[in-house]
Amino acid sequence: MSNDLRIEAANCTDALSPAELDAARVRIIAAQHTLQQRTGAGNEFLGWMDLPDSALLEMADIRSAAEEVRAHSDVLVVVGIGGSYLGARAVIESLSDPFDHGGLEVVYAGHHIDGGYLTSLMKHLAEKRVSLCVISKSGTTTEPALAFRILRQWMEERYGKAETARRIIAITDARKGALRKVADEEGYRSFIIPDDVGGRFSVFTPVGMLPIAAAGVDAEGLLEGARTMREVLQGTDPELNPVLQYSMYRDAFYRAGRGIEVLASFHPRLHYVTEWWKQLFGESEGKDGKGIFPAAVSNTTDLHSMGQYIQDGMRTLFETFLTIDELDDRTVVPSASDDTDGLNYLAGRAFSEVNRSAMLGTALAHRTGGTPNLAIHLRDGSARSIGALLYFFETAVALNGYALGVNPFDQPGVEEYKRNMFALLGKPGFEQLREELLKKLSAE
Amino acid sequence: MSNDLRIEAANCTDALSPAELDAARVRIIAAQHTLQQRTGAGNEFLGWMDLPDSALLEMADIRSAAEEVRAHSDVLVVVGIGGSYLGARAVIESLSDPFDHGGLEVVYAGHHIDGGYLTSLMKHLAEKRVSLCVISKSGTTTEPALAFRILRQWMEERYGKAETARRIIAITDARKGALRKVADEEGYRSFIIPDDVGGRFSVFTPVGMLPIAAAGVDAEGLLEGARTMREVLQGTDPELNPVLQYSMYRDAFYRAGRGIEVLASFHPRLHYVTEWWKQLFGESEGKDGKGIFPAAVSNTTDLHSMGQYIQDGMRTLFETFLTIDELDDRTVVPSASDDTDGLNYLAGRAFSEVNRSAMLGTALAHRTGGTPNLAIHLRDGSARSIGALLYFFETAVALNGYALGVNPFDQPGVEEYKRNMFALLGKPGFEQLREELLKKLSAE
Repeated sequence: MSNDLRIEAANCTDALSPAELDAARVRIIAAQHTLQQRTGAGNEFLGWMDLPDSALLEMADIRSAAEEVRAHSDVLVVVGIGGSYLGARAVIESLSDPFDHGGLEVVYAGHHIDGGYLTSLMKHLAEKRVSLCVISKSGTTTEPALAFRILRQWMEERYGKAETARRIIAITDARKGALRKVADEEGYRSFIIPDDVGGRFSVFTPVGMLPIAAAGVDAEGLLEGARTMREVLQGTDPELNPVLQYSMYRDAFYRAGRGIEVLASFHPRLHYVTEWWKQLFGESEGKDGKGIFPAAVSNTTDLHSMGQYIQDGMRTLFETFLTIDELDDRTVVPSASDDTDGLNYLAGRAFSEVNRSAMLGTALAHRTGGTPNLAIHLRDGSARSIGALLYFFETAVALNGYALGVNPFDQPGVEEYKRNMFALLGKPGFEQLREELLKKLSAE
Repeated sequence: MSNDLRIEAANCTDALSPAELDAARVRIIAAQHTLQQRTGAGNEFLGWMDLPDSALLEMADIRSAAEEVRAHSDVLVVVGIGGSYLGARAVIESLSDPFDHGGLEVVYAGHHIDGGYLTSLMKHLAEKRVSLCVISKSGTTTEPALAFRILRQWMEERYGKAETARRIIAITDARKGALRKVADEEGYRSFIIPDDVGGRFSVFTPVGMLPIAAAGVDAEGLLEGARTMREVLQGTDPELNPVLQYSMYRDAFYRAGRGIEVLASFHPRLHYVTEWWKQLFGESEGKDGKGIFPAAVSNTTDLHSMGQYIQDGMRTLFETFLTIDELDDRTVVPSASDDTDGLNYLAGRAFSEVNRSAMLGTALAHRTGGTPNLAIHLRDGSARSIGALLYFFETAVALNGYALGVNPFDQPGVEEYKRNMFALLGKPGFEQLREELLKKLSAE
């Protein structure tokens, strides 16, 4: 078993029969074989499997670009959407102080179509030294392309073309696409998104690593955690391999009619890890009318929101707790002379101990209420542990996708709204679809 | 029909038969009658219905306390969990600039058990003038009580007892409970949480109104929107009453096997409105093994995350879009001399127009993919519209709860984890449960 991450599944035992678990185990072990042989659907997108090693080769270049950004900037604007920003944001927010950005503030843009947000952002940037990292394989995805067009013009007006070029880093395709063309013409420093890595699996490529290193996070530790986890996940013994356990329970619950998984983090800093997880699992499994619906809560916050439902609503859920075992937490409950609030029984104890009891109490309560739950325990809150966790989840969803009979590496459904949007906006080339849609809309 | 809010349901028609809709209509109209007669389950908690009027009476006091906070503070720390902070945060973030807090920064605490967060927060507050608003009916809910204990001691060390008392506002029970006792003894300014209003329905009490007014938001406009909406929702004609439509579709979809509702906002500022909505709906409906599972996405961001699942995953969903019709948006797409990104076809058009086409395109795509969807259109992004929306949702969940046969105003399942947590932490009075739990844990 890994030292960085372990699975605890005692609160699942009531909900699944041994036969259900056995059948799931067989499917997951077969899926592991397919993944390791690289013979399954979408095997042209398995580059993510090797990134923990191959990414090391790029770290010197990443580190140098990151240091340059930190030296001449107060703010780094990361322009990207979906897999082009969620991995970086998940890692950065997991490992940063929530109130103190430690020298370089990282802000995000191009992840929606809100003009007011961009206008406010430019006001916010006015007095600050700004760098920008634009991340897009094609350079024509509407949201980041719109934001980049505006922010680039704003930077060129402010800094002039030459200085702007020094302040922009492009992460894009090696040879083709609009952003590659602009980067080459303008002389931006650039990094490559490999062809064999999909967006939601790209956190260990420069897509994630450049912003992560610029934010001052221990990027090397992150890769080390992923590398160690990679070794552990090669094993074929379910007792020693946490991904076989997690994927087995997921597969069994889904087939037993539990179509919703709630990932319940007990640490607010992990919020964007759960957002990243939702994309990874939702896009990989949610196709062909199948797949677990991924939802996330942040506890104990959401015990006072979604807790009632999970305890007592429709019994179509299972839960995965996400918790850090050893927190570097020196905040203790102080004693009070009056004890009006009745908390003196906790005086002198660490907040992390209270939080751990909340988690344990919740796990037992939800099990009793009919929501089985397993727990992913991270050893600590280091970059190494986060790296291990992300690689663990990437592997898990590959196994579950294969066991489900879908291609876990495509996302055909993401294109549908875009085509409709282009047609409605009158983009050249979409004239026929535009006519069809307008007819549909006016008929109602 | 209301001018502030309207329902569009053209993309639902394929998914429900006329008979299903008729049956749902009958149930919802019966529920409306029960609510208006105040004869249903939980009718001791219907105080929220009258708040749009009664809250006006308190506005002078709220306004004066808010002005005092603004005059002597840079930061207001709001201490509360669940319904004691989500309403305020939903309104404040909907109506504030995302990067500029306009003079008073509002931060939140006591909504989880993270010691590191509190330590970082106190460092963040060190050079700033601080006020604190503590919100708890009992004063003994673990999360806010812990945070208040720490922050109060920190303020008393910094400001002394007398000045601290001037900088703390307590919102709590009129007569009983730990926080009432402390507030009276220390001479804090205080406001009352009425006995007939549950936490998740409390946004128009001082629980919401004090932080909202302090943040500089148009609190009176908010109430005006709620008041106008209240009139509209009295009507019994489904064609003219948007809440009858929304609740009818929800009821019909649930009974037709669609157990997940995805609230899809198209404006990032509304993120906490969707968080507030999840508590309101999840706690009100999720009981007795029943209820729609509430999930939320923020678009177009999450079209690049959960979009694939919604387009093409398990067909157990329906979607509710949340959109603002008239945005005060002067951000337009600039022209570019080279057009490498291919966006010149949008030059001169407002971002809000592009965003609207994304929504319309998504609605049609999801309908085609088998996820029916309705849309809630807010007239504009004003406080008045937000007030109308919140009151609309409160009424809707009451109707849906009654139609479902549950008490929409209790939350018995929220206590379970607390009792376990108290027992595991060794709280006096929980000795027997502690023994049972420890036995259970060691057996595995």
